Amino acid sequence: MKINNLINHTTEWLRGTGPNSDVVISTRIRLARNLTGFPFPHKAGKIQSGEILKTIKTIVSSVDLLKKTTVFALSELSGIDRQFLVERHLMSLEFARASNNKAIIIDDEEILAIMVNEEDHLRIQVVQSGFNLFEVFNIINKVDDILSQEVNFAFLPDWGYLTTCPTNTGTGMRASVMLHLPALVMSNSINRILEAIAKLSFTTRGLYGEGTKAHGNFFQVSNQVSLGHTEEEILQNLNGLIRQVIGQEKSMREVLLSRNHAFLEDRIWRAFGILKSAHLISSEELIELLSMVRLGVDLGMIKEINARTVNELFLITQPAHLQKIEEKKLSARERDLKRAEVLRQKLQ
Amino acid sequence: MKINNLINHTTEWLRGTGPNSDVVISTRIRLARNLTGFPFPHKAGKIQSGEILKTIKTIVSSVDLLKKTTVFALSELSGIDRQFLVERHLMSLEFARASNNKAIIIDDEEILAIMVNEEDHLRIQVVQSGFNLFEVFNIINKVDDILSQEVNFAFLPDWGYLTTCPTNTGTGMRASVMLHLPALVMSNSINRILEAIAKLSFTTRGLYGEGTKAHGNFFQVSNQVSLGHTEEEILQNLNGLIRQVIGQEKSMREVLLSRNHAFLEDRIWRAFGILKSAHLISSEELIELLSMVRLGVDLGMIKEINARTVNELFLITQPAHLQKIEEKKLSARERDLKRAEVLRQKLQ
Repeated sequence: MKINNLINHTTEWLRGTGPNSDVVISTRIRLARNLTGFPFPHKAGKIQSGEILKTIKTIVSSVDLLKKTTVFALSELSGIDRQFLVERHLMSLEFARASNNKAIIIDDEEILAIMVNEEDHLRIQVVQSGFNLFEVFNIINKVDDILSQEVNFAFLPDWGYLTTCPTNTGTGMRASVMLHLPALVMSNSINRILEAIAKLSFTTRGLYGEGTKAHGNFFQVSNQVSLGHTEEEILQNLNGLIRQVIGQEKSMREVLLSRNHAFLEDRIWRAFGILKSAHLISSEELIELLSMVRLGVDLGMIKEINARTVNELFLITQPAHLQKIEEKKLSARERDLKRAEVLRQKLQ
Repeated sequence: MKINNLINHTTEWLRGTGPNSDVVISTRIRLARNLTGFPFPHKAGKIQSGEILKTIKTIVSSVDLLKKTTVFALSELSGIDRQFLVERHLMSLEFARASNNKAIIIDDEEILAIMVNEEDHLRIQVVQSGFNLFEVFNIINKVDDILSQEVNFAFLPDWGYLTTCPTNTGTGMRASVMLHLPALVMSNSINRILEAIAKLSFTTRGLYGEGTKAHGNFFQVSNQVSLGHTEEEILQNLNGLIRQVIGQEKSMREVLLSRNHAFLEDRIWRAFGILKSAHLISSEELIELLSMVRLGVDLGMIKEINARTVNELFLITQPAHLQKIEEKKLSARERDLKRAEVLRQKLQ
């Protein structure tokens, strides 16, 4: 697989399918793992990080489950390519910034991604569309098992998996669910929900993970606690919480539909109209508008396009994606122009 | 002619033709005239105002130039019909409120309108699309001459025509030009222009005359002074002023096109996109959006519709017009829904 092939590929988690996909965009689990006998990445020298990368590459090429993956050395990727992978949620922003013996392993469906020599030696991620916590866990668990057979992970019976940052120690697991909650936002109920989530020791973030703001009614909810609970317990708790939130969003959609039908219809169709006709559009505004269009699709109001198309528009209008489509560097203003052009093409 | 026939009729001043019609919507002149031997309308009794109406009706039916007109007694018009005529700029809002011996005389093209027993015994109006001060004056002058042959107008050599309100004494003439000045508004140059207009003793108003605010970049400029100058002088002064404003608007459009092309294109196409897709739209927002679309048409960006269609949309989406289309009373919210529906139908 080549990076450029991904441009025309709809990553699995954007397919708009899976359980509760009218509220849940995607479910993601990542595991932090470190190899015994090596210092944590920020303390490891060139030779040590090189050895880790070599070990992992060997495993990937020999293990059946990982054969349909490609290893990309970060040193061989351009700045735009790295940002491109960040936009596809295949690697973190911090990881993209340095390249020394760092690599990213991606499977053809973009379901599995393994960052090598990130904050931990390995950051394994599995992501799928819709609300699929246990299925996603089953997949990542298999990958974890296979890797455990090939290398020794740093693990202490009392502590669990050891990680660079103590917040990840224990299970080393972070499970995240990307929610689309337009009705809770429009009805001003979202703050109450976010407060409840925080009180239950879960974290809410924006579309691009840690440190990013929620835009266009998208909220990523994940576990904060990794230590002192089993993976099963963490997933059960998160599962219960997300089911609650999904229920509340769905009832609020019903309320809006029955009490504010014209208002809702107006917001949705205006957003669609602007996306089809604007000539300059920022990524922030785009997310707000696509959020409304996505709601329109989910409510059955908009039938011209489906959830998958909306999701694809989210992705291909991101800065690095636009620059890969145009095959050159673009200034912020040029991107706003190109973004609007791509939208008009795709929607007309 | 019946009132209802007007719904499908494009009044002459909305045809979007005539000189400088890319900046000037319409040119309007009205003359205030009173008959000798009768008190001014607010002092006239029922019998007197009835006699005035009878006199005028007789003239209208016998004079060739006025044969293609219809007399509507206000007492026979419903509230919606009256508002409908106000929206078509055929009569004033104040006039529409009372009905005692009031009548409106309209020609088939809606170029000529005579209000009987308004603030003065007669308010004669001629309106045409584009910038046509002298042609409009020629037409109204002929009507005035013909009426003068049939009745005696209150006139003193030192004062000119006598009117109920002293501000109209003298020529009794008010000449107004409806300007569309989006580029001067967008470039924040409009206040400088409006101040200059005020200093030269001209008045600026909104779309619906006295006491109305400017909306959507539409400004109606008219003479304030009626006394101490001949009609010719007033028209020459107004003509010079308007030519200046037209020139400034046109150069500013050129500047915007060359320096802010994408911004302008974006504003225009978004407005068009919203008009085509909204499900709720207020008349204020409509005017703002149609103003942008009109600019798009005038600049040759939008080719799907022409100026006449834009102007028709202005008119048929007014409250009374919507209610006549729907053939029933509509609340403000119902009108916002119907307005959006009419727009979607006409633009798709």
